[in-house]
Parts: sequence; C-alpha cells; structure tokens
Amino acid sequence: MKLATIRSVCCSVRVRASGSRFSGMSRGCLPVETINSRLTLRTASTVTSSGTSSTLTANFGKQLKEDDWSECNRSVGEVVQNTKEAIATLQRRNPGIQPLLVILQAGENGSMLEISKKVAGKIGLNVTQICLAKKCSEDEIIEELLKLNDDPKVHGVFLHLPTSCLTSRVLNTLKPEKDVDCISNLNIGRLVRGDVSKGFVPPIASAVLDLLGKYEASLKGKSVLLVGGQGPLRLALQCLIERSGMTVQTNHWNSKTLKTQVMQADAVLLLSVGNMDIPPSWARPETVIIHCESALEPDDDLIDLPSTSGLAYLTAAYRAQNVTHGCCRWLQEQQYRPWDLYSHKLQPLNPVPTDIEISRAQTPKPVAQLAEEIGLLPEELEAYGRNKAKVQLSLLDRLHSQPDGKYVLVAGITPTPFGEGKTTVTVGLVQALSAHLKLNSFACLRQPSQGPTFGVKGGAAGGGYAQVIPMEEFNLHLTGDIHAITAANNLLAAAIDARMLHEATQSDKSLYNRLVPSVYGVRKFSPIQISRLRRLGINKTDPASLTPEEISSFVRLDLDPSQITWQRVVDTNDRFLRKITVGQASTEKGQIRETGFDIAVASEIMAILALADSLKDMRNRLARMVVGSSRSGEPVTAEDLGVSGALTVLMKDAIKPTLMQTLEGTPVFVHAGPFANIAHGSSSVLADKLALKLVGRDGYVVTEAGFGADIGMEKFFNIKCRASGLRPNVMVLVATVRALKMHGGGPNVSAGATLPKEYIDENLSLVAGGCHSNLKKQIQNAHLFGVPVVVALNVFKTDTQAEIDLVCQLAKECGASDAVPCRHWSQGGRGSLELAMAVKEAAGRPTNFQFLYNTEMPILEKIRTIAQKVYGAEDIDLTPEASSKIDYYNQQGYGSLPICMAKTHLSLSHMPDKKGTPTGFILPIRDVRASIGAGFIYPLVGTMSTMPGLPTRPCFYDIDLDPETEEITGLF
Amino acid sequence: MKLATIRSVCCSVRVRASGSRFSGMSRGCLPVETINSRLTLRTASTVTSSGTSSTLTANFGKQLKEDDWSECNRSVGEVVQNTKEAIATLQRRNPGIQPLLVILQAGENGSMLEISKKVAGKIGLNVTQICLAKKCSEDEIIEELLKLNDDPKVHGVFLHLPTSCLTSRVLNTLKPEKDVDCISNLNIGRLVRGDVSKGFVPPIASAVLDLLGKYEASLKGKSVLLVGGQGPLRLALQCLIERSGMTVQTNHWNSKTLKTQVMQADAVLLLSVGNMDIPPSWARPETVIIHCESALEPDDDLIDLPSTSGLAYLTAAYRAQNVTHGCCRWLQEQQYRPWDLYSHKLQPLNPVPTDIEISRAQTPKPVAQLAEEIGLLPEELEAYGRNKAKVQLSLLDRLHSQPDGKYVLVAGITPTPFGEGKTTVTVGLVQALSAHLKLNSFACLRQPSQGPTFGVKGGAAGGGYAQVIPMEEFNLHLTGDIHAITAANNLLAAAIDARMLHEATQSDKSLYNRLVPSVYGVRKFSPIQISRLRRLGINKTDPASLTPEEISSFVRLDLDPSQITWQRVVDTNDRFLRKITVGQASTEKGQIRETGFDIAVASEIMAILALADSLKDMRNRLARMVVGSSRSGEPVTAEDLGVSGALTVLMKDAIKPTLMQTLEGTPVFVHAGPFANIAHGSSSVLADKLALKLVGRDGYVVTEAGFGADIGMEKFFNIKCRASGLRPNVMVLVATVRALKMHGGGPNVSAGATLPKEYIDENLSLVAGGCHSNLKKQIQNAHLFGVPVVVALNVFKTDTQAEIDLVCQLAKECGASDAVPCRHWSQGGRGSLELAMAVKEAAGRPTNFQFLYNTEMPILEKIRTIAQKVYGAEDIDLTPEASSKIDYYNQQGYGSLPICMAKTHLSLSHMPDKKGTPTGFILPIRDVRASIGAGFIYPLVGTMSTMPGLPTRPCFYDIDLDPETEEITGLF
Repeated sequence: MKLATIRSVCCSVRVRASGSRFSGMSRGCLPVETINSRLTLRTASTVTSSGTSSTLTANFGKQLKEDDWSECNRSVGEVVQNTKEAIATLQRRNPGIQPLLVILQAGENGSMLEISKKVAGKIGLNVTQICLAKKCSEDEIIEELLKLNDDPKVHGVFLHLPTSCLTSRVLNTLKPEKDVDCISNLNIGRLVRGDVSKGFVPPIASAVLDLLGKYEASLKGKSVLLVGGQGPLRLALQCLIERSGMTVQTNHWNSKTLKTQVMQADAVLLLSVGNMDIPPSWARPETVIIHCESALEPDDDLIDLPSTSGLAYLTAAYRAQNVTHGCCRWLQEQQYRPWDLYSHKLQPLNPVPTDIEISRAQTPKPVAQLAEEIGLLPEELEAYGRNKAKVQLSLLDRLHSQPDGKYVLVAGITPTPFGEGKTTVTVGLVQALSAHLKLNSFACLRQPSQGPTFGVKGGAAGGGYAQVIPMEEFNLHLTGDIHAITAANNLLAAAIDARMLHEATQSDKSLYNRLVPSVYGVRKFSPIQISRLRRLGINKTDPASLTPEEISSFVRLDLDPSQITWQRVVDTNDRFLRKITVGQASTEKGQIRETGFDIAVASEIMAILALADSLKDMRNRLARMVVGSSRSGEPVTAEDLGVSGALTVLMKDAIKPTLMQTLEGTPVFVHAGPFANIAHGSSSVLADKLALKLVGRDGYVVTEAGFGADIGMEKFFNIKCRASGLRPNVMVLVATVRALKMHGGGPNVSAGATLPKEYIDENLSLVAGGCHSNLKKQIQNAHLFGVPVVVALNVFKTDTQAEIDLVCQLAKECGASDAVPCRHWSQGGRGSLELAMAVKEAAGRPTNFQFLYNTEMPILEKIRTIAQKVYGAEDIDLTPEASSKIDYYNQQGYGSLPICMAKTHLSLSHMPDKKGTPTGFILPIRDVRASIGAGFIYPLVGTMSTMPGLPTRPCFYDIDLDPETEEITGLF
Repeated sequence: MKLATIRSVCCSVRVRASGSRFSGMSRGCLPVETINSRLTLRTASTVTSSGTSSTLTANFGKQLKEDDWSECNRSVGEVVQNTKEAIATLQRRNPGIQPLLVILQAGENGSMLEISKKVAGKIGLNVTQICLAKKCSEDEIIEELLKLNDDPKVHGVFLHLPTSCLTSRVLNTLKPEKDVDCISNLNIGRLVRGDVSKGFVPPIASAVLDLLGKYEASLKGKSVLLVGGQGPLRLALQCLIERSGMTVQTNHWNSKTLKTQVMQADAVLLLSVGNMDIPPSWARPETVIIHCESALEPDDDLIDLPSTSGLAYLTAAYRAQNVTHGCCRWLQEQQYRPWDLYSHKLQPLNPVPTDIEISRAQTPKPVAQLAEEIGLLPEELEAYGRNKAKVQLSLLDRLHSQPDGKYVLVAGITPTPFGEGKTTVTVGLVQALSAHLKLNSFACLRQPSQGPTFGVKGGAAGGGYAQVIPMEEFNLHLTGDIHAITAANNLLAAAIDARMLHEATQSDKSLYNRLVPSVYGVRKFSPIQISRLRRLGINKTDPASLTPEEISSFVRLDLDPSQITWQRVVDTNDRFLRKITVGQASTEKGQIRETGFDIAVASEIMAILALADSLKDMRNRLARMVVGSSRSGEPVTAEDLGVSGALTVLMKDAIKPTLMQTLEGTPVFVHAGPFANIAHGSSSVLADKLALKLVGRDGYVVTEAGFGADIGMEKFFNIKCRASGLRPNVMVLVATVRALKMHGGGPNVSAGATLPKEYIDENLSLVAGGCHSNLKKQIQNAHLFGVPVVVALNVFKTDTQAEIDLVCQLAKECGASDAVPCRHWSQGGRGSLELAMAVKEAAGRPTNFQFLYNTEMPILEKIRTIAQKVYGAEDIDLTPEASSKIDYYNQQGYGSLPICMAKTHLSLSHMPDKKGTPTGFILPIRDVRASIGAGFIYPLVGTMSTMPGLPTRPCFYDIDLDPETEEITGLF
C-alpha cells in the first residue's frame, strides 16, 4: 500500500450493516465480492463472550444488538464532544480564534466530503473547500498549497485529490504543521520515531485504535495481528499499536500460519484485502476483526447514507481533532513561554581582545533560528542576510492580548567625554538575564550613524564581552534604515528648492497646468492635492471650477527662502557641508540661498521613526513636518509639497525593527537612533513595544537613553513614554569611578589626552564627592518620575575594591534601590549577574510613574520646570528671538507639544565644565525650534552641532578588509 | 527498540566466530549467555542444501568451510571496490573533490571507530573525527552539528555518541542530506514512504539485505520472519525487505506460533535478542538466520579483532558508500541541468493594467525557492526579505569548471525621448526562453536610481507583462547598493575637504603627530600609510626615522582646491546641488570652495562596481581613483587619503548581485547601474559571470546596454567585454515603428507633447526611411564587432501589420540575421516566443568577435576611430583644454585606457535633433576626463548633466501607500 492509498483509505470508508456482513460471502482465504474497494470496519460474527476480557465481550454483545457501527457512533460522539470542548476552551482563552480545515479537492463533492463537512459542522469547525479542476496540474496544486502554507488562518489541510496527483512533491510541499492526515515524509518519520510532540496521528489510525480500545478494557498485553498490506499506514498502525502496549504480529494472506495466528490473536486487522477474507470459523468468538480495504476511487456514489455512518465519521472526527490540535499548537507557540534559547558559551580571555576580534570569534546563530526560539513566526521575519532580520509590525496584532514584560531603562550619570558604557551595560544586562538567569529578555538599541564609525568614535555595538554581533553589520549599513531616512529627507529638500524655482519662474496658470495636467484629456486632482485644497478651505474637486484666486493660493506655497528650516542630510561626518550655498548653476536661474547639511540621524524623520507607533502614525507625522514658512508667515508642510506619500513609501521598510543577537545569543532589536540633543535620543517605540510582547509577562526589555539621565531619561519619560503609553518599571543608572571622580572634583578629562593619575590611583574622597553630587542628583531626578533606581557601577580594571564598595554603599544611601558592580566588559553576562538580580528585584515592586509636567502648561513653564527640577537651575533666560518663536508656535497651535531640550550632556547645567551638581545658574535659551512631525519643541541651550567633522586621522585609516576571507579589520 | 538503539546497533556490531556459535548455549526460547549485547550476524548451523535456492546452499556451504564471516568479507570487498570506483569516477569529473565523513564522537576511539577508519582508508574516503568530552552537553553537540551542516566539504556525519545524547533535537538538527545513517525524522519518513531519490538506507539495513541477497539467488517471493524488536530499524528492514520482493512476517519472542513460522521461513532476522535465542532444531537447514542484538555500550573493548571483521566492516563500508553517494548528489545538484523552474502562469488582461497593478497581481515565489530551482546552495544566498537576495561570489569558484551559457546583449536603435523598451524586451525574452522554451536563462538588469523614480521617468523594472517583480522593491532601495555607493562616495569627499582643512591649519609636525600618533607609547604606520610611503619612494617603517622632508611629503597631499574633480552625490534629483559653495561655516576657517553634487549612479564608484570582477579587483580600483591633483600637478588617489579600505568595507555587500524574478518566475540579476553618458551604462560584470555559470552550457544570459547601440553597445563591447573577458554571441537590436518613423523623417517627438499623427497612422515610407538609415547603421555597427544581430520590433498597438512586416523584411535586407515582432508588453513571454527562437538560432552560429580598437592606440586615435566608424563623423575637433588633458593623461600613464564617450543618445551625432544617419559632421570634443579607478577616459561631447532636476509635478505626487495593506500606489 503506497502512500496514495493512505489518503484513499482516509477519505473513503464505510461500515457495512451487520445483518448482511457475511451473507453471500465465501469463507476462507478466497476471493469475496469486491465491495467497491472501500475501507470497511466490521467485527467477528459470534457474540458469546468467553475471551480474555469481559468488557470486550459486553461491548461486543451490546454492539450486535444495535447497529453494526454503534461503537463507531459512540466514539464519534465522544470525539465530537471532546473536540467541541477543546475549541470552546481555545476560544475562551483566545477570543476570535477559529480552527479552520481546508479541503483541497479536484472536482465535485463526494459522500466522503459530505461526511467531513457534517462532522465539522457538529463540532463547530470551520471548513473551506478549494475545488480545482478534475484534471488539475501538479503546479496548480503546489501553488494552492504554498498559499495555504502561508495563511496563518489555516490550521489543517485535507488533500482530497486523485491518487495520481499525490506526488511526492505535493505531499511534501504541505507544511508538516498543517498535514493533519500525516502524509508528509517528515510527519511519517516523526510518527515512526515516536516524536509525538510534533506531527499528527493519521485519523484513520486513531479511529482504528479507538475501536480497539473500545472493545478491550485494557489494551496492554493484547496481541494484534496485521494481515496483508504494506507501506506507511501499516507501519503507522504497527507503531501505534505497539506503543499502546499490545504486541503485534504481521503476516500475509498466503501464509500457512495465518489460521493459527488468527485463532490466537485478540484482534485482527485486515489490510489490502482486495477480494480476500478470513473465514469466521478461524476467529475466536471474542476476537475483534477490523477489515480495511483500500479504495480505488476517493468518492463512491454508491455509498448509502446509513452505512457510511461508521468509520468514515470517526475518521472525519479525528481529522477535525487534529485540526483543532494544530490550531492549539499554533496558538501555544505564540503564547508566552520561557524561551528555549540556545545561548553561545563565552570563554572570556584576559587581556580582553579587540571588539572586532571578540565579535568574529563568535559564530552568530542564524537569525531564523533565534526568531523561532523567541516565538516569531517565519512569515513575520524578513531576513537581511544570515545574521539580521526585520520583524513585521503585524506581530503587535498577533500578540495583542499578551501581557507586556517589565520595562527597564538604562541611563547614565553625567558622563566624561569618553562615555561611561550605557550600551555595554544594556547588552551585559540582557546577556545575564537571558543566558544566565534564563529569563526572557530583549535589548533595544539605537542604530549608530556611520559618520562616527569612520570618524572618531568608532562603532556602537557595545564592547568587550558585551556586544551585539556581528558588530560590523551592526555598525555598517544594517538594514538600510538610515539610508532610507537620508533618501526621504533629501527628496523633501529637493522638492522644496525645485518648487521655489518653479514658482519663481512660472505664472499661476502655467503652474496649474503642470500641477494638474490633462492626461488623455482628463484633468483631476491627486488625493494629496485634494487634501491641500481642503486645508485651504476649497471644497472643490473639479480642476476647472477653481477661481483664479483659488488657483493662485493652490499653486503657490510662496515659501520664504530665508525661513526654510529643512536641511539636507548625509550619514557622513562632512563638516564642509555645515553651511553651504546652493543653486549656483546657471540652470537654477539665480535662485541661490544659504543652507546646510546635518548628519542623517539628526533628521526629523529619524525622530519620527523613533516615535511612530504604526505605519499610519508615521505617515501622519511625515505629512505634518513643517519645512519652513510662507512669506505670509504660515507654516508649510511636507503634505503641502505633495511628498508625504512618497516619503512614507521610502520609509515603509525602515519602520520595521531589526533583530540581531548579543555575543551570548540573546535577542536585540536595533531600531532608530535620533540625535540626543536636538531630538530625544532613544531607540524606537515600536521596537520596545514588539519586544515587550515577545518577552511576555515575566520577561524584561532593556532599553537605553542617550547622554546623561538629566537629558536622556527626562526625554525618554516626558517624550517617548508619553508617545508610546509605556511605563518604565525600573531605571538602571550607569556610573563609573572615573566619572564620579570627575564630579567629585578631579582634574579635567578630555578625549585624546592622557588620563591624570587621580583617575588611575585609588582616591576615595573624589569618589565620595561624585556620589554625593551628580550621582545623587540623577537618582533624585529618576524619583521625580516615581521610578526606582538601580545603580550599575561599570567596573574598570583600575578601580579598587574600596572604591567599588564605597560607590555601592553611597549610592544606596542616596536613594538607589540597589547598587552593584558590573563586569560585563571583561566577563560577559556572567559579570552582570548581580545587576540582573538587582533589576529583577526592583522591577518586581509596584511603580508610581508620573510625568514631570502636563503638556497643557505654557511652553515657557514647561521649559522652566525642566530647568529647575531636573538641572537645578535658578531660572531660565530667553533671548528675544526665543520668546518670539514661542509666541509663533503658540499662535500656530503647537503650544501643547512636549519639550525636547538641546543642552550639553557634559554638565547638568549648560556649561560643559561645571561638573558635579552645579547650582545657582540661569539657563539661557538661545532659540526655540520645533519638530512638528516628531511632535516636540526644542529649545536651544548654547550652540548645537548637527554635523560632526573628521579629525586629521579618522578611524578609516585602520579600516580594511581581507579580499579573500572578507574579514574586516579596524572597526571598534 | 527506540531510535537510540539504531545507532548503537549501527556502530557496534560483530560476528562471532562460527565454531563457537552454538557451543554452550541452551537451545530454544530460553535465556542464553549475554554476549555483550552486540549486533551479531550468524547463519543456521546445518550445511546440507535442499532449500529453495541452490545458490543459497552453495554459498552457505562454502561459507561454513571458511570463516563465519566470509560472506561478509566478500561483500565488504565488493562494496569497498564499488565505492572506490565511484570516488574515482567522481574525481575524474570533478578534480579536487574529496568525499568526507565526519565522525562526531564523545570520548576516545573504540574498536567500532577503528573499523570505520580502516574501511574508509581502504576506500580512500576522508574521515575527520571530532572528539567531544565524554560528558558533553546537548548544546555543544548542536553547535558542532550546525557547523558541519554549513560546511560544504562535509558529505556525511556519523554520530558516535552515548545514547543519552541522541535526543530528538540532536538527531533532527543534522541536515538530512548529511544524515548517512538515516536517523532523522525526515529521512526515516522518506525511507518508509519509499522516497528513495533523497535520504539514505541505514548502513546496517543495507548490510543485512546484502547478506540476504548473497544467500538467495533471487529474493523475490522468499519469506522473511522478523522476530522481536520494534522502532525505526525494524520498520526500515520491513520496508526494504518487502520492497526487494520478499514477504515479511513479524512475530514476538513469546508467540506460540514462532516455531512454525521459523520452520517455514526462508530467512529469520532476530531483533532485540537480549538473552533469547532460537533453537537450531526449529530452522530448516537452508534457512538463513541473522541474529541482531542491541548494544548497551557503543564501544566494547572486548571485541577481538578477528571476530569484528564481519557485519561491522560491512556496515562501515555501506556508510562510506552513503557518504560517497551524498557527495555525488551534492555535486549533481551543482552541475548543469535544465532547471525545474516553477513558472507563474500569466493571464494577460486587455487593456493592459498599470505596471504596479500587474506586478501586485502576481505573487512572487519565495526567493529561496527560486534559488534552489536554479541550483544555488542555501549558503550562497543572503535573503533580503522574501523576494530578493544577494548571491555570494564564492559561486564563481564552485562553478569554476562549468561551461558558460550564451551571452546575449540587448541594445537599441537611436531612441525617441520616450525610450523604445530595451528593458521590456530583455525581460520578455527571458520569460519566453525560460518559462516557455524551458531553456535556462537569466536577465541581467541595471539597478535604477531613485531620482527618476520620484522625478520624471518612473520605475525601470520593465513594464506591462514583462516586468521584474515586486516592482516596488526593484525601484526602491533594493538591497542598498546605491546607498552604499553614496556612503562611500561621500566619505571620500568628506575626507578630501577635511584633509585640506587640516593641512591648511597645521604644521608638518602637528600633522605627523596626529597621522601617526603614539598609542600606549608606540608609534607606527598603518598599512595604508606604509603603502603611501612606498609610492613616495620612502622605504622606511619606523616613524622616528623619517627626515623632515620625508615627513612633509608624507603628511601633505597638497591638494589644489581648484583641481578637485571628486563630487559629492545623492540619489535624488536635486538640481540645486549642481553647483554649490561649501565650507562657509566659521568652523571651516574660510576654506570655502565651489563644487557640486552628482546623482549617485554617476559616481565613479558605481562604474567600478559594474566593472570589478572580484572583491580584490574592486578594492584595487577604489584605491586607484583619482580625486584631483596636487599643486605640483600629481594625481592624488583615494589610497593617498587612506580611505580605500574603508570604501571597500562600505561596498563589501554591494558587490554581490541581487537575485529577483520576472512576472513568470524566471531569474533576474539586478546589479549596478552606471550612467550611460559619463560611464558605460551596463549592469555588472559579476552578475553576467554568475548568470553565465548558473544557466550552464545550453543556457542564455540576456543583458542590456544603455542608450542607443552607438553608445551602449560600443561601450559594452570595448569597455565591459574588455574588462570581463566575456564574448557576446548575439545582439538583439530593439526598434519601434515610432522611432523608425522619426528617423525616416517624421516630425519632432518630445516628451510631454502630443504625438503627431504620423506616428499613429500607418506610414510605410517613414518606416522604410528609418530602416534604411538608423536601423541599418546600428546593424552595421554591431557587425564592426563581428556580432550577429536579431532585430526585435517592440510592437505598439498603433502599429499596422504592413508596418510590422516591412520592418522585419527591411531589417533582414539590412543585414540582420533575423527580425521579428515582439508583444511581450501585452502578452508576456508568450509574446516574445518568436524572438526567443530567433535568438536561439543566431546564438548557435559561430562568432567572430573583435574589438573596434587596440587600447595601445593613442587616446586621440581611439576617439577618432569611434567617431568615424560608429557615429559616421568626418573627423573630430578638440578644444585646447581637451588636448592638454590628453597630454596630461598620457604623461600620467593613463594613455592605454579604453574610451567612454559622453555623447547624447538622441542622435548618432552630437546634435540631438539630427535623426537617421547624420553624415559629414565634425564631432567636437569639449573636454576629456578620466575615471582612473573604473578604468576609462571619457571625452565630453557637449554638456552632460550628471544631476537631473524635479519637474513642477514630480512622480511623487501620485506615490503613496495604504497604511493598512501596505500596498503602494503611483509607482510605474
């Protein structure tokens, strides 16, 4: 019996009525009438019970008095009932879920399908029939199967096709998790190997076993004889029967020992019957005989309805059960569970090698494997090479009802110019949580700009044994998000200048003719033009109906060249583009103007990417972006320029977070990286949201805020949390002995210069000074928002134990829930175990989160609140320009946006050299700007550079790759 | 017997010596001595032959006289010999190939492994042993397995591990194609289902069957009894024995019918023996008894060597055979074969919908599936989402010995401003070749710039029913190559200006200290600095040893700001950047200069990407790029700026071509898209090379040259073919009735204006005029290179049959091998069948390719040759500037580079309005420039725009996406 036959057997069975069972048949191993080659169930004819089991006899006797298929009937009832209840339970826990069986058939319905549908109806199982032509091709079937594979609403597929169509390719194209009839190689292998957690038991085998169970009180030790047949179905039965504790013998029809074996067997299964039969005299009265014949045709119009009510119904019921089971598994895979994460072992070396060496020494697991481990569906993943993948936002819908994990923010005390290691702490912490404490956890990091990678700072993937790998992919193009931002930003910039040129050189009429051209004689507004007309208060849709005044106001944005705020961007440290003059070619007809380039991550579009919570939200924010104002002082937006749809199209992939992994194989989202001065400096809302769902109730999402806590944390809470609605559970405050000594009065620290010896030798009084000033103030700042603080002391090899102990002691005295040393840089996750434990403890406490200010407060008051409460300023002082800008924004209706302070990160004040906790200063507000699309007002405190430069010897001097091995050197 | 046991059985078998076989054993189903729980082979004791087969008897008799395992010995010899020969055959056909078996073991070698190695040694099979600790963890095993899976040099893996390690996860992690013991679910399923084209027969089962075959002349009809056991091995044996034509009975040890069955069986296989045995008296003399016992320990130090020479050797030999088989299959998969391509059916609509509608109506098959269909290995693919993937260059090594397919170039006659459809012809042609004629074929296309996509032209994925899908992914970021070019180009630009600033503001000493800083007290040159020193003739490596003069020449590139030729780029139509002034911020200290931006595809780096034939070649070309000259007139290169390594790192992924598909599911490479005026306008050499290997001997690669044939084809042959070494077999010359009418004297045609009626109504005389002028000349141009021409008339709906017939007739009269109408736009591949047939015919002829000029000719002569022979000019006329540039290039040693003419594509001459075949003109050469990295000199004929502008109503007005469905509108 080849595979095709299984299917035939499965989909066409019937039970002959008891009375006629043996009538007119010859007894013995002789040809009997061909009964349409159907699978038939029957039992031996004699009733008297004297066998091994009284239950068996009782059942048996009972059965004969009723219908021949009454046992079947009872079983069908039970399976139907159980499956019905299983679906109900499923739906209680997952409202909206509906198990679905798809029947892929060639040609019309037959009785078999009617039975399937009837049983499904009783159960409440949805069934979809896909009818192909009777003579469909293999390709057509494959095409349908691929669609069914991809459709998450389909939980099982029943291939009701002619035998000739059931090629190996067809059988093995169907996803094993939807192969409810167990016909694929993989599922057959699973069944044979006893890998029962996956795959399915063929419904026909379940039905036969069910009946065996019905007749026997206990199956254990019973002996079953399988006569005839071969192939997967017989093997499946053999395995399953043996696994039920029975012993199995097999024999063939021509064997001389058949009679003896039949007489000794407790049950006989007849396979591949053809026209053979067993004489009744051979069987003991209590012997159960189940008679299966392979079908030649899947449908038989001769089946009379009463007689089909038996094994056919039972098989259909078990198939429905398998579908429900498949749906259950599918749901389970998506539900919260501790991840079964395969974590890379670290064997840290001493001295610690370079970052790229450490990164390269570890082979990342394929991102598809990581995705599977953390419960992502294959269709939710868009791989970019082997090591990184974008994750689709549809995940948020799928995990809608999943509770969020704990939300942990990593911020720092006011740093030295070297930075104090927030990213390494973040990565080390998740390595400890996931790989060592086995708690689901995710790090959410910012994508770095390529400018610094080739300029001064180097990479941003963490460092030492706390890194995201492969670090070169993290630091280079990643999945192209920043490139998409550059493209979108510059398309808008080009649109602005081109529009000014066209308006300057054309009449209203000519502009109108070009903006609303006649195409094949038809003139109409595009949707984005209609929306501009609405904003102008013109409720017309016929281009011919506009008055000349209306045409003029429609075609002329009348941008004031001196008021254009939109800059171009590149993702390169190109200082010569800070201030430039454009339009100097003769083709631009003298429309020159001064403008400049920012680095791409300073684009408002980057801030939007970080704050958007859906594609729609992103589109709306892009449309709202103000690029300048008209000569009459009205703001002009991207939507006015007709470009917001195109910008969204350019950004449609960028909105999906990128999945990578740490050195220890735990998951990381890398997404967005807005500047921390003129923007809010945190990774994306969407990455955090996806991660919180993926880690689930008992998991942790660790994300990072740029700069010191006075800026990064404040903006994270007041801007990002306000946009996302997410509430943090705990803040990790990163400190180093070096930075604390600086705040405690240590000498000046500057990049490039040698570190003074105070920073290398033990100096407890400097450390204490730093703890009592900057550290204490930053802890208090977190408490302003009601968030508990765990201080993470990022230990350097020059730190002494006394210094470490002192920091931990004083931090707790200053109000931290806990304070612990971290050695992730040299040890990986193991070095951050103490921090992980402290975070777990702190995150378990109830929080009392509150915003620092209400957005309805006047802009001036919001600025003052931040300056006084967070920075410790006496007051603020605005230039007249700043004041008039505030008035302008109020007048334009932007007054209730939150505030994004653009201030130095090197001091709590606006003066970079004032360390510790400066007091008594007045914070000067030089200017106030607005990112309307991103949704904040940003006051400028001092000058802000939005375009770094290249030093004399940039990082790129050491960056190269081996053309043979493709290994990169010089990245750090 | 669970799966683990299979393994044990497989890896520890022995044959007891015949003499001692039954001695001291009780007979009957009684406990016998425990013989170390090994798989044992033996035959029944009596010799007399009277059974069903004389061969059996003879063998049997013979055997007893020799060793108990003499049959084994003979079989081992045969398998060893066969496998040895198979390897030899393999190596004759694939020099360098070496089948490799990896043994993954825990702890020391045992006898079993010694046997395996001994057998492998005899065969000449390479064996690698990987020894894990005896108590290794599941994760450690998995880690090894993942590495082995990925290693293409490994063809089979033997898991010689403790039973407890053989978890379901371990067994199913191993790739099925390397699972030579058939222990994974999938392979077991295949075996059971009889899917023999994949998977393997367990070596132990092969060994047992071999022996059965040895004893029986014909296995057919023999009856085999399996006693005891369960699980995969018994099932495998059962299937295989039945498939050999024998009948199988199974029974268990306690059965009362056992004796009768044994007496009737021709062969008895004893499984799960434990301490049971069959009394010799039960068996007929001629009955073969094979006795298998499961092993408790994989290694047994008690095995004495003589007695292990039996089944253990045979099993090892069959495993080696499986490894060789696996290697064979792996090679076969990589060799030329007609693809089994699953092609999408097209059902073209009339009228033809918009491009984006057609694209969206077709579901592309997953790129991984396409890759498999065309013979790519999974590890050679780097997916970028579901629909596109980069292909690794290692493919070229793997297919090194594969013959190339036919190489077809698509070029056009001089076009109208609308373009005449070269891309659609290219795509339609491969759709016809692959999907309809079932010939392996690949299209190689250029990646379009995003500038035109959002500007005027729209997308470039083809059109109508001849498109690359998904067209939005093709037209947008694709896999980020152009973004990488932008990043690399602009990093170099930033480096130039920053270096000039630093040199202008620092002393030699200060520059030297910064360029060669002391790091932890050590000063040394980076490799790229050493290479600069060499170029300066300074052969020193110690920074302290340089003289002040040497330091000065080392630190100062002394770039002349007025001689900088390197421009910045953006991939946006931003006309205001054509000419700009940079460095106007006060931080740049007055170092202002005029410069400009080009569109990214005009970057020399794009031309390099298109011409490089390896990563190394690309790195060398990037290093050679000249960015300007010093005040003393010396060229300054990217290498001098120390940035060529970083540029290569930025471009390392861009060098891999991107695989996509046509509407009909046939493969397409999209790679590089250099400008066709200041560069050569063809897609990449690497894409063509990869495609030629992938299609194989009888396949076709169709690639495209930009602009008209006078420019695109000429550069394709003289520049690209020179760089690649590839030789074209046929050129397809695309013509339209519209363009022919224009050349025949029709009125002016311009974009935006309505088409004059001559172009809509039939006009045979205009058509004939066009054929006899421009078409004829372009055919002649191809013949200059010795390449046959097939004219493809891209049919528009306004073309009349008479016009079509006339073109085809005249084209042939003008020297074309063939001329056929194409209707791919409205019909897909079916509409290009005639073209496909004509191309196949023409490509079958011998070619006589020759270059137009020798590169050693003087620059001036090369320019004149092109102008006279290809354009039909009288002569050339150079400005003094052009002449002096030629002198400069000659003096710098660039004189033997090929020529890349920058000329209008709208006429054969330099005058866009001269249609047909202009004659008698003098071609003016305004200026001559050089792309030293790309490797060509480009004379400028008239002004060339390298930065398009945005019109009043750019395409982006109509581009948008539905935030719910993510469907894009407005792209075309």
